[in-house]
Amino acid sequence: MPDAIAELLHELIVATRILASQKVLDAFGHVSVRHPQNPQRYFISRHQAPELAEVSDLVELNLDSEPVKPTQFRLYSERVIHGEIYKARPEVNAVCHHHAHAVLPFCISGQQLVPVFHLPAVIGKVPFWDQRDEFGDTNMLVVKPEEGASLARALGSNWMVLMRRHGATVAGTTLRELTFRTVFGCENAALQSAAMAHGHVDSLSPGEIALSAAHSVRPPSTNRAWDYWVRHVENAGLMPAASAAKKSSAPAKRAKPRSARTRKRG
Amino acid sequence: MPDAIAELLHELIVATRILASQKVLDAFGHVSVRHPQNPQRYFISRHQAPELAEVSDLVELNLDSEPVKPTQFRLYSERVIHGEIYKARPEVNAVCHHHAHAVLPFCISGQQLVPVFHLPAVIGKVPFWDQRDEFGDTNMLVVKPEEGASLARALGSNWMVLMRRHGATVAGTTLRELTFRTVFGCENAALQSAAMAHGHVDSLSPGEIALSAAHSVRPPSTNRAWDYWVRHVENAGLMPAASAAKKSSAPAKRAKPRSARTRKRG
Amino acid sequence: MPDAIAELLHELIVATRILASQKVLDAFGHVSVRHPQNPQRYFISRHQAPELAEVSDLVELNLDSEPVKPTQFRLYSERVIHGEIYKARPEVNAVCHHHAHAVLPFCISGQQLVPVFHLPAVIGKVPFWDQRDEFGDTNMLVVKPEEGASLARALGSNWMVLMRRHGATVAGTTLRELTFRTVFGCENAALQSAAMAHGHVDSLSPGEIALSAAHSVRPPSTNRAWDYWVRHVENAGLMPAASAAKKSSAPAKRAKPRSARTRKRG
Amino acid sequence: MPDAIAELLHELIVATRILASQKVLDAFGHVSVRHPQNPQRYFISRHQAPELAEVSDLVELNLDSEPVKPTQFRLYSERVIHGEIYKARPEVNAVCHHHAHAVLPFCISGQQLVPVFHLPAVIGKVPFWDQRDEFGDTNMLVVKPEEGASLARALGSNWMVLMRRHGATVAGTTLRELTFRTVFGCENAALQSAAMAHGHVDSLSPGEIALSAAHSVRPPSTNRAWDYWVRHVENAGLMPAASAAKKSSAPAKRAKPRSARTRKRG
Repeated sequence: MPDAIAELLHELIVATRILASQKVLDAFGHVSVRHPQNPQRYFISRHQAPELAEVSDLVELNLDSEPVKPTQFRLYSERVIHGEIYKARPEVNAVCHHHAHAVLPFCISGQQLVPVFHLPAVIGKVPFWDQRDEFGDTNMLVVKPEEGASLARALGSNWMVLMRRHGATVAGTTLRELTFRTVFGCENAALQSAAMAHGHVDSLSPGEIALSAAHSVRPPSTNRAWDYWVRHVENAGLMPAASAAKKSSAPAKRAKPRSARTRKRG
Repeated sequence: MPDAIAELLHELIVATRILASQKVLDAFGHVSVRHPQNPQRYFISRHQAPELAEVSDLVELNLDSEPVKPTQFRLYSERVIHGEIYKARPEVNAVCHHHAHAVLPFCISGQQLVPVFHLPAVIGKVPFWDQRDEFGDTNMLVVKPEEGASLARALGSNWMVLMRRHGATVAGTTLRELTFRTVFGCENAALQSAAMAHGHVDSLSPGEIALSAAHSVRPPSTNRAWDYWVRHVENAGLMPAASAAKKSSAPAKRAKPRSARTRKRG
Repeated sequence: MPDAIAELLHELIVATRILASQKVLDAFGHVSVRHPQNPQRYFISRHQAPELAEVSDLVELNLDSEPVKPTQFRLYSERVIHGEIYKARPEVNAVCHHHAHAVLPFCISGQQLVPVFHLPAVIGKVPFWDQRDEFGDTNMLVVKPEEGASLARALGSNWMVLMRRHGATVAGTTLRELTFRTVFGCENAALQSAAMAHGHVDSLSPGEIALSAAHSVRPPSTNRAWDYWVRHVENAGLMPAASAAKKSSAPAKRAKPRSARTRKRG
Repeated sequence: MPDAIAELLHELIVATRILASQKVLDAFGHVSVRHPQNPQRYFISRHQAPELAEVSDLVELNLDSEPVKPTQFRLYSERVIHGEIYKARPEVNAVCHHHAHAVLPFCISGQQLVPVFHLPAVIGKVPFWDQRDEFGDTNMLVVKPEEGASLARALGSNWMVLMRRHGATVAGTTLRELTFRTVFGCENAALQSAAMAHGHVDSLSPGEIALSAAHSVRPPSTNRAWDYWVRHVENAGLMPAASAAKKSSAPAKRAKPRSARTRKRG
């Protein structure tokens, strides 16, 4: 396994731990990343609570969401969400599906999610999708390729889609951009709900959304947030071991955690 | 004590720790499991905060909720909730009574709890019971057999019942199904409250409830959630020691916690 | 110092840690206990965040809230709250003044706090007091004896009083009863607020309040909750060392914490 | 580096950790302190999540917010917020800019923040500033000197200003006063939102605000809260190492943490 891929898979696990630590993912939900050298494939954990996944739990799937090598692992029944979005959106390299408590009230009430401060401007326009519209009564899971394709069509050229009575799906060009958009999408939802309770919601203008989003997706912003979230995963003792590839060949980008020096441990 | 029972009692303690960890149980509330070989008996902790219970605190009661062997332990005054539901519902093998903060607002306001996303579809229809209707002013505790029987009648063929100005009681065919339904019943309540504040609640259709519930009660779902909740109990250092029976004869089903390898501890 | 007093002072510190752990006390607020052998005196911490108090920080005051022995310690400016309630209510042996976030919305909105489930029935009728009514514009602190006496009159024969734009004061016949009433007073407030957002509040009938309160103030209930809260203080590593008196002469009432055996520590 | 400055920089890091621990700061936001001997300069962290900053990450800027010595560090793009307020307000020696979740609903809804209990009276009158009013559509960041100067004008002679669809900026005469005002400004916001949901907000009278604020900004109050917040940072293992200067020449002002003696560690 080339070093670049080993590092990417490690980053996928870190992104997943961050999203669990930030209360986006719980027992359910999943995160994937597209293969950097073969855009017809993507990596995702086997079926389990995402927070528990290790690199050794990752499987490589084609865009029909079938494993490229035979595997004994049970797979996520909703993996077509990922495959169908990768098919429809060549520029998307990472996808997260979740049922975060901050966002679900919008999926239940049908209220429109809009950027209410500058950092979450990266969510842009957030369309709705209702599985019932096209498929009638189902078990609500997106398991058939045509269900995934329908969701991808609802997402369109946007970056986040709300699924009625179900959850949300978010896309990004990189894992760090995806993580930033997913977490701040939840923060926006929580704050918009609070402002709705105040009786008025003042959202960003289209110009403010475009300018703020362009600023926030740049690495200085996404890395600053990533480093902060990583520290919280570390402090909780939940950081996965560094990849072997990374350990042997690549110097860590971040300085060694200062907390290791200053945290008092018994 | 046969191994199967030792394992079941261990699982009862784990379920209890999960429900405490998930903020369903606090100083009050209790969980029980029916004897797997004698359906006229069930196991429940002696009187104490449920989170503090160990296997050695469990007592065996008959369906009149009297101990089958003399005991010095103080017993829960509300144990008839369990006995009377086991009498009325032969397919029920586990019961939880709680006062979770997510659910109590419904018990106080009288608003109907309805499944608002797919995972909690397992709560189905949730009836109300008001002790005052049949018994007038009481200390609100369900202590007489006829009070327990009245609650069991209100539950009927459903799986969760709300008790006005008091709390909730939930039933399951297994401990894991019970734990899943109890936790997601609380999550549904919290999210429904949030959607009510948005001004509209879009609930699942009857067909969606039936199909979603049928999917979620299957072991792949209940075990996935169970493993996740167990990890959180482990990470908090609150996992009970494995049962002696389990240690000697049965290999652990889950792999050894990966966190033990990767969590940083001083 | 007689053993009984040493144990009581230790219990005062434990009660304080519990109330901090349960998010009732923060940097401000205070708890006191009446001298068991001299009803004209009471014990309270010197001026500091209550969670930080140790037995060695306790001072003995008379009911005019003056120290019975000269002390270098800065004292709480609001200690007259305690002294004046002890003067007015001979059966009260413990007092807590706090600004818990659950209760403050009622102090700000003026909404009446009423028991909404059985456990908090111990709060009974909760009157309001507004320092402005009798004393006009002040710094809002209850520092003069006449201010404390006015608050005690508003409390009357009740057990909890809300102070407009300020906080709450709670009384008990014992430290454990006080702790139970204070914590469940906050839980009631939080749940009543949630039910108000649902649009309807169904409170206990007068008969239900009387019967439920009579049950909950008995030791089986207050001790069950106390043991649970103590465990949480222990698990957070915040339990004060046992008093010397207790260690040498009195066997611990609770079994040694089981968590010490079963908690996994690296 | 003189000892007084070393101690001040250490205190700046402690204040920052407190504000992170109290959920005011997250990946974004920043805190600064004016140079005690040269009022034309101030200290602030390099560009990063504030919680991660160490003394070695601090840079010294002039009031045009340019570094006084060449540095490789990336700087906060919004540092003009600090420089322009120091220019406009000679009595201000510490500034915090944040996006706390408690306060943002007011920035989004436009509801006026008012002191609702005595401790936050130190926020006084809280004006609004909308970057759009003067600068039209921007990326919402305060990066140009004229943007910072406009914000400083909106702050005027007050101590806290809300920035529409963005966050808040708070000023203080000392770091401890700033920390007190910032944390209690957030607590006031959360409690005011809760009281608004009750349907009525009873705020302090102008006389009560003046008298309460005068009391709370005194060291007995700000130090009591500071010591409490420090303990929470210590208990989380996130306290920065004491400054070398402080270690060698200055006895610690606070007694050694009692928790070190009484906290149980495995």
